[in-house]
Amino acid sequence: MAEAIDYKVVGTRPVRPDGADKVTGRAQYGADMNLPNMIYGKVLRSPHAHAKILSIDTSRAQAMDGVFAVITGDDFPSVNDGGELGGEGGGSLSGLAQNIMARDKVRYNGHAVAAVAAKSLSIAEAALDAIEVQYEKLEPVFDVLKAMAADAPLLDEQCFTQGLPEKPEKPSNVAGVMTLARGDLEDGFAQADVIVENEHVLPMAHQGYIEPHACTATVAEDGHATVWASSQGHFELRGQVAALTGKGISKVRFVPMEIGGGFGGKTRVYLEPLAVMLSEKSGRPVKMMMTREEVFRATGPTSGTVARVKVGAKKDGTLTAAQLWIALEAGAFSGAPHAPAAMAVFAPYKLENFKVEAFDVMVNKPTVAAYRAPGAPQSMHAMEVAVNELAIKLGMDPIDLRLKNAAEEGTQAPYGPKFSVIGLKECLEAAKAHPNYTKPVPEGAGRGVAAGFWFNIGQQSSAEVHINPDGTVQVVEGSPDIGGSRASMCIMAAETLGVPYDSIRALIGDTETTGFCNVTGGSRTTFATGLAVIQACEDVIASCKSRAAALWGVDEDQVEWEDGQAVPGPGVNADVKPMSLADLAAKAHKTGGPIMGKASLNAQGAGPSFSCNIVDLAFDRETGKVDVLSFTAIQDAGTAIHPAYVEGQYQGGAAQGIGWALNEEYIFDSNGVMQNAGFLDYRVPVASDLPMIDTQIIEVPNPSHPYGVRGVGETGIVAPLAACTNAARDALGFLVPDLPLSPPRVLAALDAQEKG
Amino acid sequence: MAEAIDYKVVGTRPVRPDGADKVTGRAQYGADMNLPNMIYGKVLRSPHAHAKILSIDTSRAQAMDGVFAVITGDDFPSVNDGGELGGEGGGSLSGLAQNIMARDKVRYNGHAVAAVAAKSLSIAEAALDAIEVQYEKLEPVFDVLKAMAADAPLLDEQCFTQGLPEKPEKPSNVAGVMTLARGDLEDGFAQADVIVENEHVLPMAHQGYIEPHACTATVAEDGHATVWASSQGHFELRGQVAALTGKGISKVRFVPMEIGGGFGGKTRVYLEPLAVMLSEKSGRPVKMMMTREEVFRATGPTSGTVARVKVGAKKDGTLTAAQLWIALEAGAFSGAPHAPAAMAVFAPYKLENFKVEAFDVMVNKPTVAAYRAPGAPQSMHAMEVAVNELAIKLGMDPIDLRLKNAAEEGTQAPYGPKFSVIGLKECLEAAKAHPNYTKPVPEGAGRGVAAGFWFNIGQQSSAEVHINPDGTVQVVEGSPDIGGSRASMCIMAAETLGVPYDSIRALIGDTETTGFCNVTGGSRTTFATGLAVIQACEDVIASCKSRAAALWGVDEDQVEWEDGQAVPGPGVNADVKPMSLADLAAKAHKTGGPIMGKASLNAQGAGPSFSCNIVDLAFDRETGKVDVLSFTAIQDAGTAIHPAYVEGQYQGGAAQGIGWALNEEYIFDSNGVMQNAGFLDYRVPVASDLPMIDTQIIEVPNPSHPYGVRGVGETGIVAPLAACTNAARDALGFLVPDLPLSPPRVLAALDAQEKG
Repeated sequence: MAEAIDYKVVGTRPVRPDGADKVTGRAQYGADMNLPNMIYGKVLRSPHAHAKILSIDTSRAQAMDGVFAVITGDDFPSVNDGGELGGEGGGSLSGLAQNIMARDKVRYNGHAVAAVAAKSLSIAEAALDAIEVQYEKLEPVFDVLKAMAADAPLLDEQCFTQGLPEKPEKPSNVAGVMTLARGDLEDGFAQADVIVENEHVLPMAHQGYIEPHACTATVAEDGHATVWASSQGHFELRGQVAALTGKGISKVRFVPMEIGGGFGGKTRVYLEPLAVMLSEKSGRPVKMMMTREEVFRATGPTSGTVARVKVGAKKDGTLTAAQLWIALEAGAFSGAPHAPAAMAVFAPYKLENFKVEAFDVMVNKPTVAAYRAPGAPQSMHAMEVAVNELAIKLGMDPIDLRLKNAAEEGTQAPYGPKFSVIGLKECLEAAKAHPNYTKPVPEGAGRGVAAGFWFNIGQQSSAEVHINPDGTVQVVEGSPDIGGSRASMCIMAAETLGVPYDSIRALIGDTETTGFCNVTGGSRTTFATGLAVIQACEDVIASCKSRAAALWGVDEDQVEWEDGQAVPGPGVNADVKPMSLADLAAKAHKTGGPIMGKASLNAQGAGPSFSCNIVDLAFDRETGKVDVLSFTAIQDAGTAIHPAYVEGQYQGGAAQGIGWALNEEYIFDSNGVMQNAGFLDYRVPVASDLPMIDTQIIEVPNPSHPYGVRGVGETGIVAPLAACTNAARDALGFLVPDLPLSPPRVLAALDAQEKG
Repeated sequence: MAEAIDYKVVGTRPVRPDGADKVTGRAQYGADMNLPNMIYGKVLRSPHAHAKILSIDTSRAQAMDGVFAVITGDDFPSVNDGGELGGEGGGSLSGLAQNIMARDKVRYNGHAVAAVAAKSLSIAEAALDAIEVQYEKLEPVFDVLKAMAADAPLLDEQCFTQGLPEKPEKPSNVAGVMTLARGDLEDGFAQADVIVENEHVLPMAHQGYIEPHACTATVAEDGHATVWASSQGHFELRGQVAALTGKGISKVRFVPMEIGGGFGGKTRVYLEPLAVMLSEKSGRPVKMMMTREEVFRATGPTSGTVARVKVGAKKDGTLTAAQLWIALEAGAFSGAPHAPAAMAVFAPYKLENFKVEAFDVMVNKPTVAAYRAPGAPQSMHAMEVAVNELAIKLGMDPIDLRLKNAAEEGTQAPYGPKFSVIGLKECLEAAKAHPNYTKPVPEGAGRGVAAGFWFNIGQQSSAEVHINPDGTVQVVEGSPDIGGSRASMCIMAAETLGVPYDSIRALIGDTETTGFCNVTGGSRTTFATGLAVIQACEDVIASCKSRAAALWGVDEDQVEWEDGQAVPGPGVNADVKPMSLADLAAKAHKTGGPIMGKASLNAQGAGPSFSCNIVDLAFDRETGKVDVLSFTAIQDAGTAIHPAYVEGQYQGGAAQGIGWALNEEYIFDSNGVMQNAGFLDYRVPVASDLPMIDTQIIEVPNPSHPYGVRGVGETGIVAPLAACTNAARDALGFLVPDLPLSPPRVLAALDAQEKG
C-alpha cells in the first residue's frame, strides 16, 4: 500500500450541503414540480402477460369531460434503432420504445397500452376505464429455462440470438449469449482433488427505491419540451425522450429533481415520453406519478436467474478450474445483465482454466433494469457459495482459501485486462483479523463470508467551476447527487484549490446549463465527475497563476499555487505578497474578466473495487425466521473522499443484499400477475430488521485518479447473497441453494432435510 | 466605410427563440414563481417627504392572525460601504441600503419604512395599517436649485460634495460635481459671430417598464437564499442582496425570470432584500409585488434637470465655444447621472473650447436610477437645441451645420480618448438624403432634427458553449434577454461555428449555473456577451480541430474549420473526409469526452454609436395637443446582428424619447406627493399616439468586435427630446425651452407669445 497522503479536506466528514433541505422537506423530488394549468396523466396497463393488440378504441375516453388528451402507441414515432442503450442497463432503444408504450402486442402484465391526461387524477382514472382494448391472448412463458426451449412461445419473432459465432436460423427468446473461457477446462478439473457442483435459482428482485417514478413535462408551442423528473442521469434520459418522441436532443430540456433512490432503476424512461406526448397533444403541462404497484409491475427489477456452477481445487486450496452456466431473465425486452454477470463471476481469483456462458433470456415479466452491480450478485452468489463448499470439503478457513487464490496487481482478469493495483487481499486480510470474524460464532447461529467485486466505470463527465467576485466557488456539473456527490465534489474542489470546504457550493445543472455527463451509475460519479471537477479547478488555478503573474509583472512559471494562494516563486521581488483566491477574484475585472475553469473528459482508469463480507445469521427452526446478528462490510474504496458517505454506501449495499438474500422476491400467479406488488408483501428490510451494519473502509488508492478514488456504490451488494447462503449452510449444516432464505423456504428445507 | 462582409447568418432576421413562449403566455416573469406555503410581503411607505423616524411599533401587526414576519431597518445589517454601485446607475451601496428600507429618517414620500409577510395580500395590507410609526417632520426640498442653496434643508448631514479640488467645509445636498474643460472659453466665445444662450427645465421621468417589480424569495434552514426576479443583471443584483442582507455572495442564488422592460431601472434591488429577510424570519417563501403606484413613488425615475447652455459659432458655422451648466436631481440618495451627462453633451462635435459643470443634487423625491443613456438626453437636449438655434441664426441647414463640426475618426472626444472609426457623418448624411427630410414640411407642422450619442460599454461577460451528442449547440450565458439577446447570441454562434441558426439554443443561466456577467445595460450585451459567446465558440472549434486531427492521425495545424466542418488541409491523405460538428460530437467519447468551450472577459473597445433623428410635429393651437406626423431614427449600429431587433431598439428609444418630450413628467403636490402615479395620468405614448417610427440602420463596423458590433440600445432615446423641441420651434415660430411639450405648456407658451 502506498503511504497515506496528507490531505487537508479529502477524508474529512463535513455536513452535506443538501442535508438541510432534505431533512426540512424543502428538497424538490420528481413529483414536486407544479405548473399553472397543469393536468394529470395516467397509464392504462395490460391485464395480460402476452397478447396481440387487435384494436384500441379511445373515443369514449376522448369525449369525457375534463379529458385533454389520450395517446397510444400510434402517437409515437417508430423507433427502429436497435442501438444499445447507454448506462449500465443494457437493452436496445427499440425495446425501450415498445416497453414504454406497447405497439402491436403486450408482453407482460402491466405493460403500458395507452395513457390519458385529465384535469384530475380521478378523471384520468375513469378515462382509463373508458378505453376499450381488444386483445388476442397468446401463450405466455415465465420460466427462464422453459423460455430457452426450442418450442417455447416467442416474445419476439424478430429476435435472433446475439453473441453466437453465426446468426442462428430460427428466432428465439434468447436475445444474447456471452461466453468467456481460458485454458483447458477438462484438464483443470482433472487436476482437482475436490470438485463442487451446484445449481441455484434466484428470484427477480426490485431496486426498491422509496421514490416512485414521477415527472412533469410541458411542451411549448414551438415544440420545445421541458421535463422535470428525478433520474440517475438527465442527459441520458434526455436522449431517450428525444429519440422516443422524435423531437431530437435540442428540443428537450431535462431538469433534474432530487432523487429518492435509483440503484440502477432510474437510468431509463417510463413516464417521461408519455408526459411529453400528452403535453404536446393537450397544450398543457402534464404531471405523471406511478403508484407503488405500478413501480413493481412495470419498472425494472433485476433478473431472476438459474445458475449452474462447478469448481475444482487441489488439496492445498489452489483452484484448478471453474465453470458457470447462467441464464438471466430479461423480462419482456432483451437486456439482462448477462455480460457483467459473466465478466464478474471469477474476478476475485487467479484462474488458469475457466468457462462462463451467460444468457439474456426474454420471459413475460417486467423488463429488467440495472440494479447495483447488475448481474454480479447472481453470478458471484454461485461462485462464492462453491468456494465456501470447497473450503468445507478441504477443511480450510474460507478466507484463507480465497487469499490463496486471490487476484492481485498483474493478475489477468477473467474479462481481459491485467489488474492494476487492487485491494482484494487487503480486504480479505482485514476480514480475517476483524473481531466479528475472530469472535466465536454465537450459539445456534452460523457464520458466512463471501467476496465481492465490481468493475467501476469511467465514461463521460463535464464540470465548470466559477469563482464568485468574493472568492467563493461555484461548481457546476451534471451528475445527479444520489449518494452525496455534491459533498464529494466540494471536498475535491476544496482540496485542489486549497480553499475551505464551506466556501464551495456544488450545483447539478440541467441539460441546458452544463456539459454532458453520463448516468450516476457504474460507481463512476466520484471518480469521473470528480476528475472533471478537479481538472476544472486546475484550469482555475492556471488562470489564477497567469493573472497573478500579470499583476506582478513576472512570468507565469514564477508563480506557484499554495494553500489557495498565488505565491511568488524564486526570483520574484521580495515585497510581492501572496494573493488569495478572494484577492484575485476582486481584481478579476482588471485581469481578463471573471475567473472560470472547465473540463470535460471520458475518464479512463476506473479502479475495480473488491470486498469481503462477514455475516452471522440465527435461524428459528420453528418458524423459519432468520435474524441477522451481525454484518460486517469490508471494502476497498480507493480513497474515501467523504468516509461517512462511503460507509453509508457499504451499509446500503449490505441492506439491499441482505433483503434479496432473505426476503425479497417477485411472486407471480399462473397468469403472470404479480401477487405482492407493495411494500407490505414485497418486504424490503426496514431498520428494525437489521443490526447496525459494521463497516471497514480499506484504502488502496486507484493510481489513475489524483486522489485515488475507485468508486464504492455497487460492490457492496455483491457479497451479501453468498455470505448469507454460507451462513445458513453453517447454521443449518446443509446447503439451501436458492434464494430468498425466507421462512417458507427455510422451513421447507428443514422439513426436507429431516425427511431426507 | 469598410466593404460589406459576406456573412451567412449575421444580418438575417430569424424568428426569436423566446417568441413562442412570450406570445402564448408561457414565459415566466418576475411575479410568476410560486412555491408551496408561499406567503405575501408588502411594504409600509412613508407619508412624509422628509422626517425623522422617532419610533416604529410593530407589535400589533406582529400579533395579527396570518402575519408571519414584520421587518424594519433594524433587521438589516448596517452597510457603511460607500463603494459605488455597479451598472450604469451610479449611487452608493450605503445609499441603496437606506433606500430599500429607511433607518433613522425618511427622505421621500414612498420611502420604505417597514414590511410584513402574511398569508394573503389583504392581511399583509391590514398589518401595514397596524404598524405605528412616530415621525418628526423635517422641512423638505424639492427644487434642484433650491436644494443647491447654502441654506437648504439637508437630506444628509454627512454629505460632502465629491469632485471638488478640496473637501468642502460644510455638508450640502450636492453630492458630486463633474467638470470637464478644454481650451479657452473666453477666447472661443470672442471668435464667435453668433452666440446662443438658453435655460431648460426638464422633468423627472420614469422608465415606464410594463412589468412592475416583483420577486419571490426563499431562505432555507441553512441560510441559503434563492431569489426569483426579473432584472437587468442577476449577478449584480445577487451582489446587492448579498451585501444588504449580510449573507455574502455564496449564500444567495438569483434566478433570472423573463423581464418586462427595464431601461436601466432594473439594475438595482428594491423588494429582493426585503423578501429575503421576511423569508428568513418566517421560514416560508415570500412573494412581493409592487403596484404601479409603488413603482412610480418608490423606484428610480431619471433626473429632472435644470440646464444652462451657451454656444458660439462663426458665420461659416464653425463652432468656437460651448458651455453647459447642468444640475441633475438625484432624488433622495446621491447617484444622479451627472458624469455621463457631462461627458456626452459635446461628443458629436469637434470643439476646441468648452466647459461643462454637472451636479448630482439630492432632493426629497424618489431616488433616481439609470434610464437608457442616463444623463445624455437631458444634457444633449440643451446642446442640440442650441445648435438648432445657431443654424436658424446663421441661415444654415441644421444638418449641414452639424456635418461641418462633426466628430470623426481621430477627433478627441470631450471626455478624453480619441474616437476610433465612428458613424456620425454617415448618419447625418443619411438624414440629409432621407425622403422624410427632403420632402416638404406638411402644412402647419414643424420639422426638427437632432443628433444623439452614447458611449456604449464593455464590462465583464462569460459564456459556455456545449455541443450536444447530436451536434446541436447549447449556449449558456448570464445576460438577461431584454432586447432579443438570445437570438443575437445564436446568430453570432451560428456564424462563428458555421452551423445553422436553428441548431443553436441560448439559455440565460442563473448565478449558480454560469459565469459572472455584468448588467444588461450600457448597450453592452450584444457587444461584450456576444464576444464571450464568439470566443467560447472559437474554443469549441479549437477542440474540434484537435479531435479531428487525432482521429485522422495528423497534426492539429493540418486541420481547417470551414462551414461547420473540420476539413483536411494540405498534406492530409486525400481519402480523409470532412467531419461535421455532428460527426465530431458523435465521436466525442472517443476523443476526450463532451465538446465544450468557454470564455470570460472584460470587454475592451466598445464602439460609440451616433444617431440623427428627424421629426415632424403638428400643433393644435386650440388645445395644445401635439401630433407626431413622422419620426425617423437613423443610427449607427456598427453591424446589425439581427436587424429587426436593431430597428425595434431604435423605435423603442424613439417612443420613449417622444413620450418624455411631449407628455411624461412627475407631478408633485407641495408636500412632495406624486399626483399622477398611474399610467392613466402619467401618460406614456401608446400605439395610437405614434406613427410607425421609420428607421434606417447605418453600419459602420466597430473594429474592436469580430462582427463589428457597437451596441444600439441607448443612443435612440437621446435625440428625440431636442428633435421635438426643434420641431416645435419650427412649427410655433418661437422656442419653448422646457419639457414636456404637453398641452398645458404649449397653450401657456402660445398665450404668452400672443400677449408677447
